[in-house]
Amino acid sequence: MSSSQRIGVFDSGVGGLTVVKALLARLPSESLVYLGDTARVPYGTKSAEVVTRYSLLNANFLLQHDLKALVVACNTASAACLPALQAALPVPVVGVIEPGARAAVAATRSRRVGVIGTPGTLRSEAYQRALLAADPAIQVVARACPLFVPLAEEGWTDGDDEVVVAVARRYLGELGRGELDTLVLGCTHYPLLKDAIAQVMGPQVVLVDSAEATANAVAQLLSERDLLRTAEPVPPRFFVTDLPERFAAVGARFLGRSVEHAEQVDL
Amino acid sequence: MSSSQRIGVFDSGVGGLTVVKALLARLPSESLVYLGDTARVPYGTKSAEVVTRYSLLNANFLLQHDLKALVVACNTASAACLPALQAALPVPVVGVIEPGARAAVAATRSRRVGVIGTPGTLRSEAYQRALLAADPAIQVVARACPLFVPLAEEGWTDGDDEVVVAVARRYLGELGRGELDTLVLGCTHYPLLKDAIAQVMGPQVVLVDSAEATANAVAQLLSERDLLRTAEPVPPRFFVTDLPERFAAVGARFLGRSVEHAEQVDL
Repeated sequence: MSSSQRIGVFDSGVGGLTVVKALLARLPSESLVYLGDTARVPYGTKSAEVVTRYSLLNANFLLQHDLKALVVACNTASAACLPALQAALPVPVVGVIEPGARAAVAATRSRRVGVIGTPGTLRSEAYQRALLAADPAIQVVARACPLFVPLAEEGWTDGDDEVVVAVARRYLGELGRGELDTLVLGCTHYPLLKDAIAQVMGPQVVLVDSAEATANAVAQLLSERDLLRTAEPVPPRFFVTDLPERFAAVGARFLGRSVEHAEQVDL
Repeated sequence: MSSSQRIGVFDSGVGGLTVVKALLARLPSESLVYLGDTARVPYGTKSAEVVTRYSLLNANFLLQHDLKALVVACNTASAACLPALQAALPVPVVGVIEPGARAAVAATRSRRVGVIGTPGTLRSEAYQRALLAADPAIQVVARACPLFVPLAEEGWTDGDDEVVVAVARRYLGELGRGELDTLVLGCTHYPLLKDAIAQVMGPQVVLVDSAEATANAVAQLLSERDLLRTAEPVPPRFFVTDLPERFAAVGARFLGRSVEHAEQVDL
């Protein structure tokens, strides 16, 4: 393995671009290749078996691009099949759940932590397990927020948008009345809704963005293995399994800059 | 072909159950077999090529169940590939778009008709073509409403739900200010949101439910070919490609009665 090789990143769609954004901010010299499985999006309402099958297809596609590491930038896939991917692939595989859980445990004082995500992610209880592995005294409250993904993709994300705030209040109103002081955004779409979520939860609750925590975990892994790239930055490459134009249009909001080109592949 | 054979019905997920509900009401003696492609839902944000590939898989699965007719109970699939399915299959194939368009043309007086649906359905312009084929003087206004599907699946459908009404107002507010007197609910999920849609559009606008129009078209087809079943009613059979429990739970709201059992198949 060499430092000049690429980091592969996949997600079910555009959401993982929040992880790419965090990786580019944390590791600007790295060469990234991204796959959004837009033909099969979303993963959050699918079973672990189906998500595992799709994730292996995605990983094997990315492996053809000379990888030194693979990032599963999808909470549902990380929850469903990270160990299966780690066992099957010849490169280190980093998911988004353990970094997010560790950041939450570092942030909490009350030891009451909330997790929000897709039904699939929460059904797997992967966050619950990762939080308890990091600190057995943590109390975890979980809440699925299925409408957050379509809201983010529709671009209805302003902190003062009446629809967004009403949806956030319905999902999070009761969570906000608990003693929790830390909330994990356990879906890569949710950072776009940070303003509305913060407004409903109140200033005493720290929001943990697992995209940033994951970028830190990747930096640490590459540093430990002496695999950090030092050459001139190169633009990331993007592949999708359907509708490249929609990916580029919607994805720009997630990446925080324009998506120059996305190439369609058939998996 | 004989009257005792089954009617096959497929959709990308639970939405087509509104068509099953209408078929059971219109043709209670028919034997129905339904496939929800829940592993690949939704179709509405996917390309016509991908939707066609999945639809052919669905149709070929249902054909193994001794069909006399196939209903494409999905607007996106009807828009993307009804002619391809009709050419490929040995049974008559009925989509939801032409019946809905014909019902709208029969209902309108102002000859200004609105159509709401998924981005995929409207991008295809299939409704626009079907309406103009039925009456070349019709003026068509189309609006995609991507959040309506997740709202319906989440069960947030009450006509006085603040989220539902706010979303409906944002999508439909401008449509309501036009001269249109007829609105086609061009997605099988939308009948669940009829109350909120009616409230925003006002009492002067007729809502056309393409599920009911499609059931009428199927009744006419079978009657013309002397294929109406007259034996004792049998319960419909349900197949899904993922998560049968979720299908049964969410589907009951769409079917208007409980979904006894859904069998998972791998396509």
